[in-house]
Amino acid sequence: MENFEFVSPTHFVFGRDAELQVGEKLAERGAKKVLLHFGGQSAQKSGLLDRVKGSLDAAGIEWIELGGVRPNPEINLSREGVKLCKENDVDWVLAVGGGSVIDSAKAIAVGAHYDGDVWEIFESKEQVTDVLPIAVVLTIPAAGSEASKNTVVSNDELGMKTGYANNAQRPKLAFMNPELTFTLPPYQTAAGITDMYCHLLERFFCDVGPVPVTDNLCLSLMRTIRAEAPRVMVDPEDYEARANIMWAGMLCHQGLAGVGRHEDWATHGMEHELSAYDTTITHGAGLAVMFPAWMEYVCEENYDRFIQYGREVFGLVITGDKEADALSAVDETRAFFSSLGMPATLQELGIESEEQLEEAIAEMLPTLKINKGEPFGNFKKLTVEDAAEIYRLAF
Amino acid sequence: MENFEFVSPTHFVFGRDAELQVGEKLAERGAKKVLLHFGGQSAQKSGLLDRVKGSLDAAGIEWIELGGVRPNPEINLSREGVKLCKENDVDWVLAVGGGSVIDSAKAIAVGAHYDGDVWEIFESKEQVTDVLPIAVVLTIPAAGSEASKNTVVSNDELGMKTGYANNAQRPKLAFMNPELTFTLPPYQTAAGITDMYCHLLERFFCDVGPVPVTDNLCLSLMRTIRAEAPRVMVDPEDYEARANIMWAGMLCHQGLAGVGRHEDWATHGMEHELSAYDTTITHGAGLAVMFPAWMEYVCEENYDRFIQYGREVFGLVITGDKEADALSAVDETRAFFSSLGMPATLQELGIESEEQLEEAIAEMLPTLKINKGEPFGNFKKLTVEDAAEIYRLAF
Repeated sequence: MENFEFVSPTHFVFGRDAELQVGEKLAERGAKKVLLHFGGQSAQKSGLLDRVKGSLDAAGIEWIELGGVRPNPEINLSREGVKLCKENDVDWVLAVGGGSVIDSAKAIAVGAHYDGDVWEIFESKEQVTDVLPIAVVLTIPAAGSEASKNTVVSNDELGMKTGYANNAQRPKLAFMNPELTFTLPPYQTAAGITDMYCHLLERFFCDVGPVPVTDNLCLSLMRTIRAEAPRVMVDPEDYEARANIMWAGMLCHQGLAGVGRHEDWATHGMEHELSAYDTTITHGAGLAVMFPAWMEYVCEENYDRFIQYGREVFGLVITGDKEADALSAVDETRAFFSSLGMPATLQELGIESEEQLEEAIAEMLPTLKINKGEPFGNFKKLTVEDAAEIYRLAF
Repeated sequence: MENFEFVSPTHFVFGRDAELQVGEKLAERGAKKVLLHFGGQSAQKSGLLDRVKGSLDAAGIEWIELGGVRPNPEINLSREGVKLCKENDVDWVLAVGGGSVIDSAKAIAVGAHYDGDVWEIFESKEQVTDVLPIAVVLTIPAAGSEASKNTVVSNDELGMKTGYANNAQRPKLAFMNPELTFTLPPYQTAAGITDMYCHLLERFFCDVGPVPVTDNLCLSLMRTIRAEAPRVMVDPEDYEARANIMWAGMLCHQGLAGVGRHEDWATHGMEHELSAYDTTITHGAGLAVMFPAWMEYVCEENYDRFIQYGREVFGLVITGDKEADALSAVDETRAFFSSLGMPATLQELGIESEEQLEEAIAEMLPTLKINKGEPFGNFKKLTVEDAAEIYRLAF
């Protein structure tokens, strides 16, 4: 068990009508003026934004709104948010939406009291401490950004998508009402479930030996997701199943499922290249394709870890042929994603021929090389050539 | 899944030499003068207190010390701590020890900025918000007080032992070095493990239906403790096993293992009476006797819940005879505690005859009646007469 530090200061308000408490809880914490940050029109159409505004009004909290966050949020909108915060003495950022909106809100919060341009923080990774507190009304369980220390923001001008981690940007308040997720389209529900499950895979498979307390917690979340996901897909208005998925999604990326271990994140890196190559590819769908390919490629590094995973999550009966047992666990993973309606190959994601595949690889690898040509991941240290092979396995 | 709120703001510093970071981490948070609170002489003799003082000195943080916390901490020492805080402008309380020291520190922290006598807060349950921040150097994994919202303090004058819960008294910093637990005597190690395991039982068995995400997390912690406990008992200096137990002990009572559910706590209530009747009884040892008796008495309320527990924690093969399967799970629980060296009967705890048992029951029941004669617990609502039967089962 590696030494570690861990903190998760988010105050969660979970359950039916949670969003109606936004004003009251913010007022208790002294909020006077919030930046209300959101995405497209769904929060408007569903009436959610109006309910949130009503709750703020009732609590006597002023608000300024900034909508228009897109999937893969862009730094320019965050810059606009920073400007609004500075000009209006905003004291809280309130994100209403999914991971993209929350990630954009984090960029605003870290930039609001920063003297330079907020993108500098993403480049320097400076651990700024004077960060506006963030509240979240979550509408999409997937990214886990409602409690995580992470944000990922794109910079179109530079053609980059960059992550930034800082405990100071963990949201201070998260309102999680499972009913808000009833209307998510099936594909988005499935991609979200895949994303959260992969947050566990990135933690479970790494180069540190067993850490039972963390491993068992991680496996328990995998079992929960595997059992609840089909219920959500069959009946999108199953409150209990939605609630279990929503809370699990938070736990998958808040950090507890990885403490005392290293984490890997090679597959997320390869997927980010993929959805940058073709921006119509949903992150979760890209992961559904890339993770089983990565697993197949690396499992010989530690068959026993894969066998434990297969046995405890899928109930696989162990034959004793380690390679075959490990590959069965990979097959079960692929089958699970497929059962949700996720793609299993790059072909299903629109890469139609081997020529196109090689073109795509040629385009993606140089960006992977941004890691200064260093090997990446740690369950198996991967070179750029390894990555190319994994993309080919995923074809 | 019930609506809930949850927050756990503790910043954990976990691993070897964690306590050497006390000064630095407190200084980062602006601490100027701390009340250093501890128990008997073991922290002094082991050199731990000197290391902590050295770390404070190096960081330029002043400290005042108040030792002498006893098991079942008493309110008068906390009153003394409150006085010291008020007279010396103390801005942090630093507890070095186990659950009793931390619980006493919590009483000091909630009383430090309170105008009246701190015991009033324990009586009124007022949710005071102006609470001194608490840091903890944990030496005994058991009570989970290093992250919980709870404290239990005795008032000898009134002959009472009273709990108080408030999120504002959750420690802000916890330093957890598993090496500090190497020297715990086996009985204390075993009683601590029993205590943490019972914190899970109180959460798993209640009147709310399945909440898979929480249930699975709870069961994963039970499995972890059951697997790691024998390793700790065999080799007290097994760092990995000690580390897993220490972190699990925190998770057992921090709250995540019970969110979305009610909790029961009837057995803790009955054990508190027992260790008040005979103050030589260690809380964990009392629980080892009382919990299987409670289980046996109540399991017919929901055999399926016991069968799930038996299957997932002990790997019991289900025969289909629900009563027998449920009772097997109870037997396994008793056997687990016994395997650690814990007692299994009240006789082993010194209640030697049936006459003495009835005398003890007659002495304990009126205090249970403090619950205004109302039934208590919720897996099965227990009357005072039920409690008497459970004590008899435990004989």
